[in-house]
Amino acid sequence: MTIADASTTVDRVTTRFTTLFDHGITLDCGRRLGAITVAWEQYGTPNRDRTNVILVCHALSGGAHAAGWHEDGARPGWWNELIGPGRAFDTSRFCIVSTNVLGGCYGTTGPASIDPATLLPHGPDFPVVTIWDMVRVQRALLEHLGVTSLACVAGGSMGGMQALAWSVIHPEWVRSVVAVAATDRHSPRQIAFNEVARRAITADPAWREGRYEAGAGPESGLAVARMLGHITYLSEAGMERKFGRRARGPLGFVVGQPEFEVERYLDHQSAGFVKRFDANSLLYLTKAIDYFDLAEREGSLESALARTRARFLLLTFSSDWLYPPSQLERVARALDVVGRSVTYRCIRSDSGHDAFLLEHDRQAPLIRRFLGSGITSP
Amino acid sequence: MTIADASTTVDRVTTRFTTLFDHGITLDCGRRLGAITVAWEQYGTPNRDRTNVILVCHALSGGAHAAGWHEDGARPGWWNELIGPGRAFDTSRFCIVSTNVLGGCYGTTGPASIDPATLLPHGPDFPVVTIWDMVRVQRALLEHLGVTSLACVAGGSMGGMQALAWSVIHPEWVRSVVAVAATDRHSPRQIAFNEVARRAITADPAWREGRYEAGAGPESGLAVARMLGHITYLSEAGMERKFGRRARGPLGFVVGQPEFEVERYLDHQSAGFVKRFDANSLLYLTKAIDYFDLAEREGSLESALARTRARFLLLTFSSDWLYPPSQLERVARALDVVGRSVTYRCIRSDSGHDAFLLEHDRQAPLIRRFLGSGITSP
Repeated sequence: MTIADASTTVDRVTTRFTTLFDHGITLDCGRRLGAITVAWEQYGTPNRDRTNVILVCHALSGGAHAAGWHEDGARPGWWNELIGPGRAFDTSRFCIVSTNVLGGCYGTTGPASIDPATLLPHGPDFPVVTIWDMVRVQRALLEHLGVTSLACVAGGSMGGMQALAWSVIHPEWVRSVVAVAATDRHSPRQIAFNEVARRAITADPAWREGRYEAGAGPESGLAVARMLGHITYLSEAGMERKFGRRARGPLGFVVGQPEFEVERYLDHQSAGFVKRFDANSLLYLTKAIDYFDLAEREGSLESALARTRARFLLLTFSSDWLYPPSQLERVARALDVVGRSVTYRCIRSDSGHDAFLLEHDRQAPLIRRFLGSGITSP
Repeated sequence: MTIADASTTVDRVTTRFTTLFDHGITLDCGRRLGAITVAWEQYGTPNRDRTNVILVCHALSGGAHAAGWHEDGARPGWWNELIGPGRAFDTSRFCIVSTNVLGGCYGTTGPASIDPATLLPHGPDFPVVTIWDMVRVQRALLEHLGVTSLACVAGGSMGGMQALAWSVIHPEWVRSVVAVAATDRHSPRQIAFNEVARRAITADPAWREGRYEAGAGPESGLAVARMLGHITYLSEAGMERKFGRRARGPLGFVVGQPEFEVERYLDHQSAGFVKRFDANSLLYLTKAIDYFDLAEREGSLESALARTRARFLLLTFSSDWLYPPSQLERVARALDVVGRSVTYRCIRSDSGHDAFLLEHDRQAPLIRRFLGSGITSP
């Protein structure tokens, strides 16, 4: 199979599935994993030399569905406003590829996938995966599709971490990077929030040490984890604007029921999430981002970034306290030290970490200008 | 019983228990509660007119044990460094009284107390309590002890909320207020964090709708709630300094076990907490602080504070993001508008919200100076 040559509108898209590594691969953790299926989508058309390919990488709860609409879909892709003809990631110029990460639960092999050896889900026997492993799987898919370099790797949050990792371990592939609301390594606070989320899941007896059946997972624990996640994705000012202290009706003096609007929001959001996300996947993906340290293979951030050959656009948001601007600022300074071309911008917004999925009008011109010229040449 | 006249050293203290409201009281929620036992401690000696009494009020997980050591105690009281002969709350001048709040689990009547009607713990049948209810019970205890006014009401976090409430509903009682790391009302973010903590508890099947037996409560859920609490009590910089990304040994590529030092800290702290705190109490006390709005009875913060006759010392900490300085700044501005004497200070610290229990050297001189003169006169 090669990448489809037919023009693809971003209105209607389908997810494709490709199986790679028929003979298995050894992951960072030292364990083997057999054939890996990758879910992926494509928006736009490759040029003859396939030099106009952009890889976009999703965040913790995302998937391959980055743009357009599925036939039965109620929601567009997670960066739909940024990907399309004439949009920031312009599908009339570029061919955008998006994959679900290794360890995910939206079509790519992960803990919920069936282990051919047992015909049961891998569950807790799934090997721990790293951001670097995710990148290896993405590269294998791209090679399989006849692609040998990337005009850009782009992503927000965990996706931005993948983009940075790409530029360091495959410098010959990556001509530019757009990393948004991301970091080179998690702070202890970011690790701590993830650990509470993981503990909420593993404390749920329905987790059963990870060996739950599909549809009978630790929904209560996963809901707690997701509620906490949502708090960290919003800013204090944004919550004040959105919810204040408003309550539906007078306070009921009841313990154990949501009353304030902010409580109802968390309840509603998490109730939807537990139906569509695998709890074990959340454990594995949060571990992957906690372990990630861009500097780890080279000893220092500067040495790691000295390997890169890309131009960088690094975007943060003023009210993002989960991935505070200081983290990508640190990366920008290190890139500057090693003489790489880097544009760093902190966008004023009260949307918190969620801003990378919401503030399209502020991101689009910066990305469009950055991708403007030259970088599709190999 | 009246307040003990004998001099009390703060070295060795005992908790006393007094039962009030033999005929019951009607709480803010409209429900009746029978006789209420209050756990309290005393440090220092009252003067003849009992005009030198200071009430200190504890935070969410505290109790009456504010200073000195219990006979079998491994830890001193929670404000031990601030209370004692020659200390900020000087027991050679003042008589300090500390109580466990209504709804608590350290000796005062709360959801874990036995309901005389059923001979079982109240559990989820305990009426919802408010900060105002806590204040009423404290006042009843003080009246019982022959006290009719307070030189000062002081407290941090939830304790600071009680101190502010005291000054508004019993202005004739309160000559000064020291409120630290507190607020006049919770923001939606503060409510949201509490709701996640509550959900972690109620999602634990061992919670049994609140009808668990003593020693068989929802320890897993309570641990998750406490882990989350600890994150919000620390600052990002403090966590960086304290833990960084250090791990005990190389990362184990294991899902579901604490590896990073910050994870071990949260695990250790929460494991101790679940042995000493009642999960239902946490539900009730977090509700009380979420409901609290100092302005609610008067329509505006200014109108509420116009009732007060006290002088105010309001202290915040620069890195406290759970109770951000802006909250007590708002109270200070409102006090200024209505012409009250107020000293507001934001203390530079990287200890986050925990600073009110840690930064003694920075708080002590401010409190000592504030309490310096005049205010013991009725």
